[in-house]
Amino acid sequence: MIISVPATSANLGPGFDCLGLSLDFRNQFSITPSNFSSIQIIGEGEGLAKFLVDNMFVKIFKKTLLDFGIQGNEFRFLFKNKIPVSRGMGSSSAVIVGAISSAYHFAKKEIDKQSILNDALIYESHPDNITPAVYGGFNVCVVDRKKVYHLKQEIPQIFKAVMVVPNRSISTKYSRQTLPKRYSVSDSVFNISRSSMMSMAFAQGKWDVLTLASRDKFHQDRRMKQFPVLFAVQKIALANGALMSTLSGSGSSFFNMCYADDAQKLANIFEKKFSNFRVFVLGFDNQGVMIEEE
Amino acid sequence: MIISVPATSANLGPGFDCLGLSLDFRNQFSITPSNFSSIQIIGEGEGLAKFLVDNMFVKIFKKTLLDFGIQGNEFRFLFKNKIPVSRGMGSSSAVIVGAISSAYHFAKKEIDKQSILNDALIYESHPDNITPAVYGGFNVCVVDRKKVYHLKQEIPQIFKAVMVVPNRSISTKYSRQTLPKRYSVSDSVFNISRSSMMSMAFAQGKWDVLTLASRDKFHQDRRMKQFPVLFAVQKIALANGALMSTLSGSGSSFFNMCYADDAQKLANIFEKKFSNFRVFVLGFDNQGVMIEEE
Repeated sequence: MIISVPATSANLGPGFDCLGLSLDFRNQFSITPSNFSSIQIIGEGEGLAKFLVDNMFVKIFKKTLLDFGIQGNEFRFLFKNKIPVSRGMGSSSAVIVGAISSAYHFAKKEIDKQSILNDALIYESHPDNITPAVYGGFNVCVVDRKKVYHLKQEIPQIFKAVMVVPNRSISTKYSRQTLPKRYSVSDSVFNISRSSMMSMAFAQGKWDVLTLASRDKFHQDRRMKQFPVLFAVQKIALANGALMSTLSGSGSSFFNMCYADDAQKLANIFEKKFSNFRVFVLGFDNQGVMIEEE
Repeated sequence: MIISVPATSANLGPGFDCLGLSLDFRNQFSITPSNFSSIQIIGEGEGLAKFLVDNMFVKIFKKTLLDFGIQGNEFRFLFKNKIPVSRGMGSSSAVIVGAISSAYHFAKKEIDKQSILNDALIYESHPDNITPAVYGGFNVCVVDRKKVYHLKQEIPQIFKAVMVVPNRSISTKYSRQTLPKRYSVSDSVFNISRSSMMSMAFAQGKWDVLTLASRDKFHQDRRMKQFPVLFAVQKIALANGALMSTLSGSGSSFFNMCYADDAQKLANIFEKKFSNFRVFVLGFDNQGVMIEEE
């Protein structure tokens, strides 16, 4: 069985903890019943492979199977990872959603995306990465009484994401600690209005407001101050055709949305300017978690 | 010349200072050049008619004409008002938008809605009433450097608004004073996520999420506490088919959105239960300010 889960970019500008989208850049999780357990990671994070017992995928996969009354099986796990680890591109969500989905599939349960999403919320309390990982597309997410509600809008293939992936991470936990505990009325209205406008813009295809609608007063600048070169990344992006340029998740990657025609040019500029960062030109994903092989 | 402007309902649930919509319930402003000035108000607010010099419509109309280099004219003003005064249904916005639009028309300027909207922002710093008054429909509004940006979505005629209009007002100014100066992260995320979802729901026609998406942590309950019977209004609405039930503007009216088939039944319940309140079953307006007679 092979299940794949896309990368995501969440916390989109003003959409703190509620707006996220999915990128056509997948981690593949291959699981084969075996006489003894083993784990192999190829690609991103392969140097970080932990013992089997500590692997987050394995733990969630086995816990979900146990919830279905299945235990005692041994598996060979092979993970082919494209999503950079700890860079705000949803690698943890991919593991969580991949593990739960794999368990559903192994247990011959229907891949019911809404159930998988609610299960995923147990491991990741912020819905804006796990929702696009499950469903694909641009998503508005609301959590109410431990359930995730969402509206999805497919993203047209005329756009590309130019992802800038720095050579170091920003700790999500530390990053959250730098944020204020309370926000002023004017900052709140700033974000509410822009997050609402961004959602409407994706739904209506009104792309020309995205630059305005993607500004934020809650988290971005404070996090970017830990890594000031990101201000230069954003400035370059907006000066070279990006419709929006936002910190991806809690960083350190930067998400830049362009018309496909502008993407490679922008990527070239980034590669020249930030030679120690990785740059990916990616399509958008509208599919979410997928069974690639039964 | 007769110009009409629709009533509005703004501050929609979580969409504090940014989401508003327009109702098919219009104030008509008739302006005729004359040898001497006079003002007559018929309908709502006719007992409140001030001297000509203090009338807000006349002041804004004359100021706008002066900006176009026009002065010294006398007019007969006849206002036929349907919008209740000081009840959160946009009567002030109707006056502001009506006066500016009338001045544009009298000065033979094109009725350029974007210019009128930006002019109106001078008199009303919150964009969520003036934008639907100008454009009609459901609107997401963002203010940036003293300009209003908006996205509009037309509201299908399968819906009606059941407006409950109490027999007394809530002072907007006092009402704002009861609101906190800062909001917690969790309340902010609560509103950002729901306001974004409400915007997406109107754009996608996903009406079943409106009840969830119209909840608010910023202003509604605090304002309703000044007039606790409004909690009963909201409860009755949501138990009797309303998709959403939100304080209109800063109150005291309540906006209840229903499928047209459910509207009269809900209105009857309100009329029976709150015999001293007025109840209006209204269509939605997708037009905004209109020239009714040249």
